[in-house]
Amino acid sequence: MSLSHSVLAEARRGTEPKSTSQHDRLMETRRLSLELAEPLSDEDQVVQAMDDASPTKWHLAHTTWFFEAFLLTRFLPDYRLFDETFEYCFNSYYESVGPRHPRPKRGLLTRPSANQVRAYRAHVDEALDRLVADSMPKEATELVELGINHEQQHQELLLTDILSLFASGPLKPAYRGSRPGVPAATPAPPTWSAFDGGIFAVGHNGDGFAYDNEGSRHEQLIRPFKLAGRCVTNEEWIAFIEDGGYRTPTLWLADGWATVNTNDWRGPLYVEEADGGFMQMSLLGFRPVDPAAPVTHVSYYEADAFARWSGYRLPTEFEWEVAAASVPVEGRTLGAGHLRPMPAKPGDGLQQMFGDVWEWTASAYLPYPGFKTAPGAVGEYNGKFMCNQFVLKGGSCATPEGHIRRTYRNFFYPHQRWQFTGLRLAADA
Amino acid sequence: MSLSHSVLAEARRGTEPKSTSQHDRLMETRRLSLELAEPLSDEDQVVQAMDDASPTKWHLAHTTWFFEAFLLTRFLPDYRLFDETFEYCFNSYYESVGPRHPRPKRGLLTRPSANQVRAYRAHVDEALDRLVADSMPKEATELVELGINHEQQHQELLLTDILSLFASGPLKPAYRGSRPGVPAATPAPPTWSAFDGGIFAVGHNGDGFAYDNEGSRHEQLIRPFKLAGRCVTNEEWIAFIEDGGYRTPTLWLADGWATVNTNDWRGPLYVEEADGGFMQMSLLGFRPVDPAAPVTHVSYYEADAFARWSGYRLPTEFEWEVAAASVPVEGRTLGAGHLRPMPAKPGDGLQQMFGDVWEWTASAYLPYPGFKTAPGAVGEYNGKFMCNQFVLKGGSCATPEGHIRRTYRNFFYPHQRWQFTGLRLAADA
Amino acid sequence: MSLSHSVLAEARRGTEPKSTSQHDRLMETRRLSLELAEPLSDEDQVVQAMDDASPTKWHLAHTTWFFEAFLLTRFLPDYRLFDETFEYCFNSYYESVGPRHPRPKRGLLTRPSANQVRAYRAHVDEALDRLVADSMPKEATELVELGINHEQQHQELLLTDILSLFASGPLKPAYRGSRPGVPAATPAPPTWSAFDGGIFAVGHNGDGFAYDNEGSRHEQLIRPFKLAGRCVTNEEWIAFIEDGGYRTPTLWLADGWATVNTNDWRGPLYVEEADGGFMQMSLLGFRPVDPAAPVTHVSYYEADAFARWSGYRLPTEFEWEVAAASVPVEGRTLGAGHLRPMPAKPGDGLQQMFGDVWEWTASAYLPYPGFKTAPGAVGEYNGKFMCNQFVLKGGSCATPEGHIRRTYRNFFYPHQRWQFTGLRLAADA
Amino acid sequence: MSLSHSVLAEARRGTEPKSTSQHDRLMETRRLSLELAEPLSDEDQVVQAMDDASPTKWHLAHTTWFFEAFLLTRFLPDYRLFDETFEYCFNSYYESVGPRHPRPKRGLLTRPSANQVRAYRAHVDEALDRLVADSMPKEATELVELGINHEQQHQELLLTDILSLFASGPLKPAYRGSRPGVPAATPAPPTWSAFDGGIFAVGHNGDGFAYDNEGSRHEQLIRPFKLAGRCVTNEEWIAFIEDGGYRTPTLWLADGWATVNTNDWRGPLYVEEADGGFMQMSLLGFRPVDPAAPVTHVSYYEADAFARWSGYRLPTEFEWEVAAASVPVEGRTLGAGHLRPMPAKPGDGLQQMFGDVWEWTASAYLPYPGFKTAPGAVGEYNGKFMCNQFVLKGGSCATPEGHIRRTYRNFFYPHQRWQFTGLRLAADA
Repeated sequence: MSLSHSVLAEARRGTEPKSTSQHDRLMETRRLSLELAEPLSDEDQVVQAMDDASPTKWHLAHTTWFFEAFLLTRFLPDYRLFDETFEYCFNSYYESVGPRHPRPKRGLLTRPSANQVRAYRAHVDEALDRLVADSMPKEATELVELGINHEQQHQELLLTDILSLFASGPLKPAYRGSRPGVPAATPAPPTWSAFDGGIFAVGHNGDGFAYDNEGSRHEQLIRPFKLAGRCVTNEEWIAFIEDGGYRTPTLWLADGWATVNTNDWRGPLYVEEADGGFMQMSLLGFRPVDPAAPVTHVSYYEADAFARWSGYRLPTEFEWEVAAASVPVEGRTLGAGHLRPMPAKPGDGLQQMFGDVWEWTASAYLPYPGFKTAPGAVGEYNGKFMCNQFVLKGGSCATPEGHIRRTYRNFFYPHQRWQFTGLRLAADA
Repeated sequence: MSLSHSVLAEARRGTEPKSTSQHDRLMETRRLSLELAEPLSDEDQVVQAMDDASPTKWHLAHTTWFFEAFLLTRFLPDYRLFDETFEYCFNSYYESVGPRHPRPKRGLLTRPSANQVRAYRAHVDEALDRLVADSMPKEATELVELGINHEQQHQELLLTDILSLFASGPLKPAYRGSRPGVPAATPAPPTWSAFDGGIFAVGHNGDGFAYDNEGSRHEQLIRPFKLAGRCVTNEEWIAFIEDGGYRTPTLWLADGWATVNTNDWRGPLYVEEADGGFMQMSLLGFRPVDPAAPVTHVSYYEADAFARWSGYRLPTEFEWEVAAASVPVEGRTLGAGHLRPMPAKPGDGLQQMFGDVWEWTASAYLPYPGFKTAPGAVGEYNGKFMCNQFVLKGGSCATPEGHIRRTYRNFFYPHQRWQFTGLRLAADA
Repeated sequence: MSLSHSVLAEARRGTEPKSTSQHDRLMETRRLSLELAEPLSDEDQVVQAMDDASPTKWHLAHTTWFFEAFLLTRFLPDYRLFDETFEYCFNSYYESVGPRHPRPKRGLLTRPSANQVRAYRAHVDEALDRLVADSMPKEATELVELGINHEQQHQELLLTDILSLFASGPLKPAYRGSRPGVPAATPAPPTWSAFDGGIFAVGHNGDGFAYDNEGSRHEQLIRPFKLAGRCVTNEEWIAFIEDGGYRTPTLWLADGWATVNTNDWRGPLYVEEADGGFMQMSLLGFRPVDPAAPVTHVSYYEADAFARWSGYRLPTEFEWEVAAASVPVEGRTLGAGHLRPMPAKPGDGLQQMFGDVWEWTASAYLPYPGFKTAPGAVGEYNGKFMCNQFVLKGGSCATPEGHIRRTYRNFFYPHQRWQFTGLRLAADA
Repeated sequence: MSLSHSVLAEARRGTEPKSTSQHDRLMETRRLSLELAEPLSDEDQVVQAMDDASPTKWHLAHTTWFFEAFLLTRFLPDYRLFDETFEYCFNSYYESVGPRHPRPKRGLLTRPSANQVRAYRAHVDEALDRLVADSMPKEATELVELGINHEQQHQELLLTDILSLFASGPLKPAYRGSRPGVPAATPAPPTWSAFDGGIFAVGHNGDGFAYDNEGSRHEQLIRPFKLAGRCVTNEEWIAFIEDGGYRTPTLWLADGWATVNTNDWRGPLYVEEADGGFMQMSLLGFRPVDPAAPVTHVSYYEADAFARWSGYRLPTEFEWEVAAASVPVEGRTLGAGHLRPMPAKPGDGLQQMFGDVWEWTASAYLPYPGFKTAPGAVGEYNGKFMCNQFVLKGGSCATPEGHIRRTYRNFFYPHQRWQFTGLRLAADA
């Protein structure tokens, strides 16, 4: 019932993508999905805990369909569809491709069975194994890269979605058994790093893979700012709760205040107050909240209210990206094997920029200058969501290795909080 | 993937309850539940297709919990609970027992697993095997009888609920493979049986098991009436559809008309018009509608509208019961192995009174004179539902053997139609 | 701002219907509607407080349209429609007549204006004045009678609907000023009247006006029973509240318990606990609850739960009707001018059978034997509601004079409680 | 029934704010509100057509309460509250002030009556007349200015809200009678104005009144762009409809496509296709769509989809503001008396930048750098809505004179369209 060593090894190996061929990275990605599903019974894999989440089986099948629909049927001449009904079952949201099973009903698909889905993966993997090689057309190479990254996104969702399922029942099972650990010391107040203003280039420069929403690379005018050296901790968040943060309307955006009251929020998702302390459901089961670890499972509304309460603000996505230029792209992501955000290490400078928790920014998710949706179904990947959401940066404890960049723009609605979402404070310098 | 012969044999044996001990009937009932689940994967067993339905696994566990909570913990001194968390998981609606998992979330219980539930059944069966004997206290004997009947009700629900699941997805699998058959001849118009008026005793007389809602036995004044010799057929229902029955407001009760329009009903549940003909999802898969068979999966609203359209009416529960006195309590119930309603046999007299489809009556489900709810949780069994529902009589193709009586009062809301529900016409004589 | 003396005189005169011609009774009924609206501003008359209620202006116009659509256009040869758009605006629920303004949007009809509706009434009254005479065809005479009774029903609704509006706002205005009164003595426990069982004829015999749902007159078998001499009082209801009645699930029907919890009911509609006492909004404003007066604005669910708590039950509609044969058809209805239920007078025998509050019965609202819907729109009057509702008997403090009979069957859904609804207890003898 | 000449004169005078004292401008603003309500009956003024809209009476009272609560009670020593209950009734959304009547129930407030509200206005106006003078404390002067601007915003809402009411009923009355006019020539394709990139100061510089959300003035980096010389016309929009714009998912943001389908949108709000042509409800009644006039009552989702369909994009709020620097702040706003957007005049350059329709921009409504919410209730004015909305620029045919600036930031949710909202296309240069 515990995430095997090979998975972690696999995941770690992912941190050195340069040294492996696309073929090998693809196969490792495909294998990692199966290994992430290993601790789960077929029953666990079929159910959908809420509309936002998807069943494990659906993730396993949908990522496979993605390769079949966009790559194999076009570039492998003798490829035969595994099952014609699967397109309807496992298309997520590609209107261009055709009608599809409704999202809130993904959990009703007891058929095709988990066994059939595993056979589907094997069938597609065999075909991918034959197709993917250095000699492929450039478009195919690009689609493979997109498919790898697409599957990595679903690996993170697989973990957050199974957590939402396990948190919904009375038994609160652990996805992986807990390992004993030494509680971290309560962290000191964060140090602050200051940054000059100026005109900075932001966005992806096209060198290596990036999603379309990361470009074009363009200039942004930045005003002098400073950034906290670590994420906001559970201890700090509990102070916010105990100061009446969830009961003080003037701290909140109007939509946030309505959300708090409609849903009777009194703390982060999965947190319960019990016996004078705070417990939180996690992939390691239902455990006491670690005061030193970054707060997680908070919405944009909560992050914004906390920042107002603390006298600071959230950084913009551009401030974050400019600051991130000063640190290496490494951190406690999935390969670190913690499956939860970990306390910052003592010391100055910017800690935890990558891994641990996705950091809400103050930037609405909008197109960069010159952004154009690609024609066809692949063009539906990112562009059509550029409304009503906010940008998050930096990756989390569930982000696969190699799947994070300084320019990466994750995005969620401001009320959503089932992802590993947290925050870092900023201020005008 | 087909319902095994032993199940049918089992079920048939049930038709001779007199010759077997309570112990044996109990054990056969327990076995039948497992065999009904056999064609289903663990994935099939965990999911809930709609709020009204429950997962197979939940049925298997809840019927087991019923014995544990109401019988074993009281009458078997050394009985040890299988798992203390199961009461919360598998209590259905007994407010007296305590809080419970919310009904619409039964499908999220991937844990406890199907394997654990099977172990739970084995654990309880072993205890039942030891406890149940002729020498038990009378109250225990009565609770065993209630438990058997309770489980039989859930056996029927297990089948209707799995049908609702299989009908919800794109693949429309069969619960059991279809056997080739000779289509029945289109039936002649029904003959009518006439009955005199007078004062008749109705309700259960207390001899043998009956639910509390079947008593007290009391007198009813009946006016002369006549009853159709068979149920309304699909052919007759199609004539109603084709005459614009679903588009003619004056045929409908106001609540029924609102339901038709809100849900865009154009025929019975699971029926689709395709290629000029009518198809219906069934336990044998997605098949052409059999014109000679009784219409099924119709609501009270539809049954009432059809009766009005035809110039007749529905019988009252008392008329039905008085008429049923003239025929033996036998018919094509679960043991017959058809898993769907079958055409009436040619001939005069009352056909199909038992089995095939539950027949909607014109009687609101209300307490009989002198009805009193039993104290404690068992008293919540029937009485608290005596409002807003209608009585159905006669059992269906999914009703276990031995689980039907002339006095049996089934009840559902007038909009519900996922059970095997049909109708028989009546008229004043 | 107080209900004028002439209205009350008018209403009182209604108690002697025998002595006046149909023409005069019609004109008095028409006048009474206008006088009931007199205390209200045009603003008060246009708004709809909830879906179940209608604006005063709509009542005034709809009752007028009823005469125009069903009578004048057929029997007055030179009749010219006042305005062709009014049929769409003021048809209530007659599907046979055609499309109509949606019920929940009746409160958006600021046009036609209140002035136009008053002109509409004058126009139709002038035509009615010319048409209605002894020499009319029988069908016209019957339609006039139906129209009078229809308008009387809407007079009661006008009052209950304006109460729902005045209770919805912060100012809680009185429809009519309060007159000082002497508080009644707390009533003694009710005496009980016993009735023999037997076969009794119930329902209307066709002599004089009755709604179609009151027939046919037919026999019912009644078991010996007894009936409380007065309605349940506020004092008794407060004892139920204080005994935890609204927090004890075993007292409630399942649907009732769900309703209590969904809506957070803790007492009758319009009741608020304040400063240790109970206040209730009424047509006389927001006033302390009178302990001696009948409880009112309770639903069937509450009436049923109270009866169970008290150890008694609700009477059936047939028991009530049989018992009512022993008392005259008189009581404190609208003409008495109280505009609220009043305490029972001391003494034995059946008090308060007519007037004060509508009494919930244990009878589902279903057709009597032989009931047939009349063809055409008039047939939609009562029959299509014979499902999911319960019968109430006896009339209330807002029922116009002459509009109540022993056979009268009022009906509402079991959750509804904005009418003047109360209860009287019964028991098996 | 027509907007009086004095109103228009009044409104026109407003275009020369410099020449009048604050006292006079205040009094003129107060008068204009009453005159805008003049064509409406008391019935029209009390009803609320939808949750987003408010009744006329409520606007008249709320703007008055604003002066009473924030100004008079603080700065006029002998001021006596008109009615203590009004704060509860007419507070809009100021959490700091206290509890308030729920927004969706504003239309139930038949009391206080329209007459009382007029008396309330007179009472407050008399006090304002006494208080407002050059010698007031600076804070009072600023609050008067805020109150004037606040009331002007509600004047525009009063008109859009009454249109939503009049459009909801079957009679579709005109707020003001229509004047015959000469149809404009179909406009030529727009000319385009090009603008250089660079660093530009945007936002309000604090000279004269502005809302807090218009500051701080700060620098933005603008890329070269061009802007269409006029707004998109109805003719162009009809081409979009007829090209299947409302049925083509790839043109839409995902949230927009869901909105289109949930609400079955097929054209702008209030537009109906009839007899082969397009009609639209307006303040002048239900009239044929004018092909040459700007399209109005479109949501952000529609504006965005249209821009994508046309091959262009929406401008950012900063591009718009930079472009607007080149034209005078004048246009057909409320004082022009058209009450609907009018066709652009022939000619080059930027037309229609002010007045006619509010122009959706591509900018999410977010705080400018350094924005801080003011303490207290006044701080709730704008800041708490900085989430999930988009910025609109330029004012409309219903915007009062003097109430528009280049820096003005209006904001609405992307699905809202009951305001006079339209669009102007932009492109990268």
